[in-house]
Amino acid sequence: MLIEALFHETRVPYACPENLHSLRVRLRAGKGEIARCLVLHADRYELLDSCFQQTEAEWMASDQRFDYFEALLECTAKRLQYVFLLEGKKGERVYFGESGVSKERNRAGVFQYAYIHESALFVTPEWARDAVVYQIFPDRFANGDKENDPPRTEDWSKDARPGRDSFYGGDLEGVIHSLPYLRKLGVNALYFTPIFASPSNHKYDTADYLRIDPQFGNLDTFKRLIREAHRHGMRIILDAVFNHSGDRFFAFRDVLEKGADSQYRDWFFIEQFPVVQTPQPNYETFAVNVPVMPKLRTENREVKEYLFQVVRYWTEMGIDGWRLDVANEVDHAFWRDFRSFVKMLNPEALIIGEVWHNAVKWLEGDQFDSVMNYLFRDCVYRFFAEQTSDASEFDAELTTARISYPDQALQVAWNLLDSHDTERFLTSCGEKEERFRLAVLFQMTYVGTPLIYYGDEIGMTGETDPDCRRPMLWDKEEKNQALFSYYQRLIRIRRSCAPLRRGSFRTWLADPGSPVYAFVRSWQGENAGIVLNNSDSWQNVSLPLDTWAKRNWTDLLTGEKGQASGNRMELILSPYQGMVLV
Amino acid sequence: MLIEALFHETRVPYACPENLHSLRVRLRAGKGEIARCLVLHADRYELLDSCFQQTEAEWMASDQRFDYFEALLECTAKRLQYVFLLEGKKGERVYFGESGVSKERNRAGVFQYAYIHESALFVTPEWARDAVVYQIFPDRFANGDKENDPPRTEDWSKDARPGRDSFYGGDLEGVIHSLPYLRKLGVNALYFTPIFASPSNHKYDTADYLRIDPQFGNLDTFKRLIREAHRHGMRIILDAVFNHSGDRFFAFRDVLEKGADSQYRDWFFIEQFPVVQTPQPNYETFAVNVPVMPKLRTENREVKEYLFQVVRYWTEMGIDGWRLDVANEVDHAFWRDFRSFVKMLNPEALIIGEVWHNAVKWLEGDQFDSVMNYLFRDCVYRFFAEQTSDASEFDAELTTARISYPDQALQVAWNLLDSHDTERFLTSCGEKEERFRLAVLFQMTYVGTPLIYYGDEIGMTGETDPDCRRPMLWDKEEKNQALFSYYQRLIRIRRSCAPLRRGSFRTWLADPGSPVYAFVRSWQGENAGIVLNNSDSWQNVSLPLDTWAKRNWTDLLTGEKGQASGNRMELILSPYQGMVLV
Repeated sequence: MLIEALFHETRVPYACPENLHSLRVRLRAGKGEIARCLVLHADRYELLDSCFQQTEAEWMASDQRFDYFEALLECTAKRLQYVFLLEGKKGERVYFGESGVSKERNRAGVFQYAYIHESALFVTPEWARDAVVYQIFPDRFANGDKENDPPRTEDWSKDARPGRDSFYGGDLEGVIHSLPYLRKLGVNALYFTPIFASPSNHKYDTADYLRIDPQFGNLDTFKRLIREAHRHGMRIILDAVFNHSGDRFFAFRDVLEKGADSQYRDWFFIEQFPVVQTPQPNYETFAVNVPVMPKLRTENREVKEYLFQVVRYWTEMGIDGWRLDVANEVDHAFWRDFRSFVKMLNPEALIIGEVWHNAVKWLEGDQFDSVMNYLFRDCVYRFFAEQTSDASEFDAELTTARISYPDQALQVAWNLLDSHDTERFLTSCGEKEERFRLAVLFQMTYVGTPLIYYGDEIGMTGETDPDCRRPMLWDKEEKNQALFSYYQRLIRIRRSCAPLRRGSFRTWLADPGSPVYAFVRSWQGENAGIVLNNSDSWQNVSLPLDTWAKRNWTDLLTGEKGQASGNRMELILSPYQGMVLV
Repeated sequence: MLIEALFHETRVPYACPENLHSLRVRLRAGKGEIARCLVLHADRYELLDSCFQQTEAEWMASDQRFDYFEALLECTAKRLQYVFLLEGKKGERVYFGESGVSKERNRAGVFQYAYIHESALFVTPEWARDAVVYQIFPDRFANGDKENDPPRTEDWSKDARPGRDSFYGGDLEGVIHSLPYLRKLGVNALYFTPIFASPSNHKYDTADYLRIDPQFGNLDTFKRLIREAHRHGMRIILDAVFNHSGDRFFAFRDVLEKGADSQYRDWFFIEQFPVVQTPQPNYETFAVNVPVMPKLRTENREVKEYLFQVVRYWTEMGIDGWRLDVANEVDHAFWRDFRSFVKMLNPEALIIGEVWHNAVKWLEGDQFDSVMNYLFRDCVYRFFAEQTSDASEFDAELTTARISYPDQALQVAWNLLDSHDTERFLTSCGEKEERFRLAVLFQMTYVGTPLIYYGDEIGMTGETDPDCRRPMLWDKEEKNQALFSYYQRLIRIRRSCAPLRRGSFRTWLADPGSPVYAFVRSWQGENAGIVLNNSDSWQNVSLPLDTWAKRNWTDLLTGEKGQASGNRMELILSPYQGMVLV
């Protein structure tokens, strides 16, 4: 047994309390090495071996080099000691505890989960598990009110190619008018990139956190939007841009004006007075030298209080959550208090951080509910767009991403194909729609919340920012109506099929060198089996019945029915065909 | 190269900010496999390979199966992306980043340390690095005032064998009288097990957090103790017993009396009303069913505020820190706020948690400064007391323990041989004093703060609690004076030799099957080399000069001088001899 491959630690994601009396523990082991994994566990104060219970850990997933096992340990007293008992494929048995690996239980020691506190329980909003989110970049989605168009508003046409400073006149009134469209599509949550007053088109350089940008409407428009969206069964998520403000933010203007005498000097990271913006800012900014985005000192109590007042204002107005911009560069203490505060105002509010890399440090239950799942996007990009990974590699990469987070976060992670910060996925696919469709099918059936970037559903294309921010196509002739129907159908399938929203995940087929990927999602005895042919050739697919555990199937996409013969399920898939079997 | 053995994550202890502009990163690799480890790093917003700096990671330690490398990465912008470039012993080169291991840099991805916040810096009190702490169990240390002796006080004699409920009449006045003794010993900090009002001899069942136990004295005695101890250059650390109160605590008495109507019902974990204490308590307690120690609901804001008022009262009185009882069963949020609060009251206050297992979850810089280092004790116990590990195993176990914590915590970890909760170490050594002495020498020269349990320095023995809590021997005839002098000498050596207090740690000699263990501690160009013969036979020892980097040496214990000949240092050690070479 490859001892070096064994890994466990008593923190997220390897030890996650499920409730006050049960702890979910994971074990990592070398691939294909463990025949059986048991967990021996007892209250931390028990000294006798005879007091230890035995719980079987089940194989949950594999990646390139490791197998992962998981067990749910019961602990009446909220306190746990436990040790893994591993049986190798050749029958050898070793214990794995905090002191290491040994054939003797005492030498291995025990892992200890000292006490499960109520505050350590990771609870994410129930509604988020059923959400399909639609991302709106307001200047580009719909223009409902010509009156508030900025000067030099450019032409809204399919040929529009936005520059960094283009304005197109989209606004909240436009969104309100489009709610029936969105309802028809089937989404039930809207995420808006920033809508607070700012001079730019993207509005990530906030000038006034307490005011709707006049180009987008006013407070009444926004209140009406909330009301109408809620009436249509849609939640509203706003963008919390707290890592930095804009340079027209009142506090920064004061610093620009008064320099070292400004009472707001410690709201930012000023390196020298007087403050200059050119040729290079002498203060910290977002990214590298972006003078219009001075970094906020969120550790400063005054800044925190100010921003929390902003949070209170909009949360109490009835929004349903926050997406946190550049969330990884704001201090953990800020987010911990932010979570307490937001959940106090609205226990059902959703908190999603923007983190492009492994975000486990923010997903311990006391900061975000989840993140924009760029790890998901990386996997999907390589398999469907680049086609540089095969089914086996795709599966391994998905496992690595999935295994990085606790289940609660995973269930509501925003699985995106693209966003306002990336190339459009259809473009990534070389505009090969069948690949794009297959990726969307995957997105709609995988663990987590599908996040649709406006216009993807009607076939919009675009290179990376600013080209991915073209104005929405509204003309029937210009829209890909068939694609829209496909999205509709998939969303309907997701919403009607609980395993797709709530179910566990099991790999079903992921052979090396193969373009066919299949997995099963199970929920309360119901299964949904997804089979994807990511190739331009016909594929004969033979699936083991044990993971599926039934003989009959119906494909929710085509209505086709079939039956397994013998102990395999044999399917034939056309190029880029995907199936959702129930 | 054994890919499965590679490990890094962007959190403590693998990534620890050293200051705002440098990050200490560690890499774990299979033992003996890596010839060279480089870290390529740049600001997170840099896209070009040419912007990456290259920093060599140095081998820092090995344990049974792994080598550990460490590098200090500079990052002007406080934001880091980095990838390890590993060269195997056979010349093969791979990159190791967040996406995995690959020969191609892009496939490996990068690790990201998003931003170094001031609040994420782990700062421990400077004075603690120079501390030698003495633990006092007040009922058993010294009786300075017969007036306050409890009824049925037992005889203070060398033959005393305390029962669970024995009282001996020790008090704070006794400690004040003993300060010259402690000064003579050379310690500079005193840790008191609880001194607040409580009916028991150990006082871990607090009845009144705001009152000195009358058996120990009164507020004036305590104030005088602080004053006198400070005058003698000694700091005072008190025991914070916040996991549970005693059953005579006013709030719990109110619950006992008024049941569900008590305004304090949510200060505890009551399972049912009316509250009963026998035959089994129907509320959560410390450990298993200890009715006199009801668990406090530290997540309850009122409880927190009450305890913080306690903390304020004693901290403002001038104490120098807190040792946290059952620290691992109190919620993290409580300790985070506790740290902020205590450090706000006294930035120099020390916070040491009682955690017997891996405590990294509390050592991220925002909770404890360090812990009572029971992991240290486990290693020392096996090597010196049981003699069940050889030098190589001892070294490996020490590495595992050391590698578990960030450096800041390690430097001020309370390295204990024993405590009021364990067998006395001399007893663990089968009363073989030479083994005990060697262990003490190790304790006094290793990384971290030596913690001396009262009476160890004069040869007291005792089985585990309550036998380890015998009354202190004060009679000259009964004390082991030679041992006391030995302690004195070691403490003097530690205090005069900066490398022993501040220095880095390098294993010097730790051969399998050998009882000889040697290591070097280095600080600002000065070295201290410790050589220990943990056997009852003479040992010829041959040490490589490269780690030592000098030819001449003087043993601080004996004054003996010597010189290396050739490229080795040859020493002859008598049974259980230890040397401290400079």
